[in-house]
Amino acid sequence: MLSQSFLYQEIHQQPAVLANLFAVERANIQRIADEIIAHRITNVFIAARGTSDNAGRYAQYLFGAVNRLPVGLATPSLFSVYHRPPKFQNALVIGISQSGKSPDIVSVLAAAREQGAATLAFTNVPDSPLAQASDFVITLHAGQEQSVAATKTYTTQLMGLALLSASMAHDASMFAVLEKVPGQMQLVLAMRDEIARAAERYRYMRVCVVIGRGFNYATAFETALKIKELAYVLAEPYSSADFLHGPVALVEEAFPTIVIAPSGAMQNELELFVRTLATRGAEVIVISDVPALLDLARIKLALRTTTPEWASPIVTIVAGQLLAMYLAHVRDYDVDHPRGLRKVTETH
Amino acid sequence: MLSQSFLYQEIHQQPAVLANLFAVERANIQRIADEIIAHRITNVFIAARGTSDNAGRYAQYLFGAVNRLPVGLATPSLFSVYHRPPKFQNALVIGISQSGKSPDIVSVLAAAREQGAATLAFTNVPDSPLAQASDFVITLHAGQEQSVAATKTYTTQLMGLALLSASMAHDASMFAVLEKVPGQMQLVLAMRDEIARAAERYRYMRVCVVIGRGFNYATAFETALKIKELAYVLAEPYSSADFLHGPVALVEEAFPTIVIAPSGAMQNELELFVRTLATRGAEVIVISDVPALLDLARIKLALRTTTPEWASPIVTIVAGQLLAMYLAHVRDYDVDHPRGLRKVTETH
Repeated sequence: MLSQSFLYQEIHQQPAVLANLFAVERANIQRIADEIIAHRITNVFIAARGTSDNAGRYAQYLFGAVNRLPVGLATPSLFSVYHRPPKFQNALVIGISQSGKSPDIVSVLAAAREQGAATLAFTNVPDSPLAQASDFVITLHAGQEQSVAATKTYTTQLMGLALLSASMAHDASMFAVLEKVPGQMQLVLAMRDEIARAAERYRYMRVCVVIGRGFNYATAFETALKIKELAYVLAEPYSSADFLHGPVALVEEAFPTIVIAPSGAMQNELELFVRTLATRGAEVIVISDVPALLDLARIKLALRTTTPEWASPIVTIVAGQLLAMYLAHVRDYDVDHPRGLRKVTETH
Repeated sequence: MLSQSFLYQEIHQQPAVLANLFAVERANIQRIADEIIAHRITNVFIAARGTSDNAGRYAQYLFGAVNRLPVGLATPSLFSVYHRPPKFQNALVIGISQSGKSPDIVSVLAAAREQGAATLAFTNVPDSPLAQASDFVITLHAGQEQSVAATKTYTTQLMGLALLSASMAHDASMFAVLEKVPGQMQLVLAMRDEIARAAERYRYMRVCVVIGRGFNYATAFETALKIKELAYVLAEPYSSADFLHGPVALVEEAFPTIVIAPSGAMQNELELFVRTLATRGAEVIVISDVPALLDLARIKLALRTTTPEWASPIVTIVAGQLLAMYLAHVRDYDVDHPRGLRKVTETH
C-alpha cells in the first residue's frame, strides 16, 4: 500500500522534521553565521550533486537577495578529475550531501580547506567524510531516509540554508516566517487527494517540462528530478526566461508543462508565460496560490497557503513531491526502489 | 535544398570565421587580458542565456583549470526582477550575448559596473546595449547570423573565451593549439554524410539524453539545445556524474543516449559510464576519437581529429550541430525557421 511506503511516510514526516531542525540547530547555525561573517567572505561556492545541487540553486537566490553574496555552483571535476582546483580566496565553500560520502564533493571541500578558505558542510551524517573535511558542520537531523528518492533531506537542506541566511542577516522577521513553514507544509500535504486525481490524467505522459523562476527555479529542478527518478518520465526543468531562448520550439498541441508559480515578484512574468504557452495549445498544469494564474491552467493545483516568496520553495516542493509520487503510483511503480538507483551514489 | 539554408551555410562558415577572429581580435584580447590582470580579480561571474550560457559553461572549466579562477554563472533575475544585486567585489563580470540586447543580461553588467567591478562583453554587435554597459568589449566578428539557431556565434564565443584564457596565462602553446582549430573543424565537417545517414535512424525518436563531462559538459548542453530547437526532440543534457545521481532511472531498452567523449582526462570514466548504459540496453551514440569508446557504441561517430581536451569543445560541437541539423532535415522541418523562435529573445 502506498501509504506504507517509506517515500509516503518520509514526505509526511517533513513538518515534524523541519520543526525539529528549527528548534535544535538554530543556535549552532547562529554561531557558524557569526564566525563566517568574521571571515569577511566576499562570495560563496557550493559543491553538490542531484537533489543537493537543487538546494544549492535555492541558495544562489537566497544568499544573493538577502545577504548580497554572489553564489556560484562549483564544478567538482576540476578538483577530482583534472586536479586543477581554482583558488577560492575569500569565498565560503559549502558542500551539501545527505550522506556526506560522494568523493568528488569531499575533494572540493578538502582543497578549499587546504587553501585556507572557510568551509561548511550540510549533511545528515555528522561524522561523514564531508563533515570531517569542513571547518563548520550543519547537521540536518532528518533521521534515516530509507526511500531512495530524497525528500525530507531536501527540505531540511533548504531550511538549514534559510536559517543560515537569516542568521547572517540577523533578521528576526525571517525566523518568524521560517517558524510557520511546518504548518504551511501541512496545508500542502492536505492537497494529497487532489494531486492523486490529477496524476491519473498523466498515466501515459512520456515527457514534460517543469517551469520555475527566481527562488522557485530550484523547485522546478527538484520536481523534475523526482518525476524522472520515480515515474521515469523525461521531465526537463527550465526557467521561463531560458525556455523562451530556444526550447519553446518543443511546444506542440497538448505538450504537458508544469508551472511552479507561488505568489511573488515573478507572478506577472509567469502569467505572460502561461498565456504564451496556452496560445500554442500546451497543456498547462499550474501549482500556485495566485487565482489569476490558476485561471489560465488546464489543471489547477491550488496551494492552500501563501508564503513569502523567499521561503516558498521549502513549502511548494511538497506539492512537487506528491505529484511525482502519484505519477509513479498510477503507473504501478515501486516508489521506494526506483530502477537502477541506490541510496548513496559515489561519483568521482 | 538543405545546402542552401542559412543554417547549413553558417555551420560551414565556421572555420573561416574562427580563423578571422583569431587574426583580427587577438591583440585586443591580449590588451584586455593585461588590464583584467591589473585589476587583481579573484573570481568571475558570467551572465548569459541560451546558447551563450553554454559558452559560459565552457568558461567555468577553462578559466578554472587554466587560470585557477572560480567561475559562477550569474542569476540575472536578482538584478532585473528582484532588484537585489549581489556585491561583486573583486569579481570580473562577463556578459555573453550574440545580439547584446537582452535586458536582463544588460542589467547584470550595468549593476556590476556601477559597483566598480570590472565588466566585459562578448557580443557580435559592438555598439549594442551590452557593449555600451561594459568596460571591455570582445567582438565576435561572426558576420550576420541569419539562421535562428546560433552556430557560428557559439564557436566564436568559445574561441574568444579561449583566447582570453590563453592571453591571461601568457601561454604560447595555447595559441598554437587554437590556431589549428579551424583546420580541425574542417575534418569534423567532413563527417557530414556519415552523420546524415545516422540521423535517418532517429526519424521517430521522441526523447534522448546528451552526456558530456568536464570541458565538454558545455558541448552536451549546446548539442541538446540545438536538437530541441531544430528537431523538437526533448533532448536533456547531463554530466555523466549528475546522471547517475537520479536520472539514470529513466533508462530503458533502446533509450537513446548521445555521449560526447573526445579523448582526455574523462575518457576512462566515460567508458565505464557507457558500459553501464549498454548493460541496461540503452542505444548509445558515441561522438569520440577514442577507439575503445567507439567500440562500445551502437552508432559510432568517429571524430577524424584529436584536439587537446581544453580546446576540444570548439571542434566537437560541430558534430553536434550537424547531428541536430540532419535530425531536423529527416523530419522535413525548416531548419532556418524553428517554430516559435525569433533571432533575438528579450527576457526580463
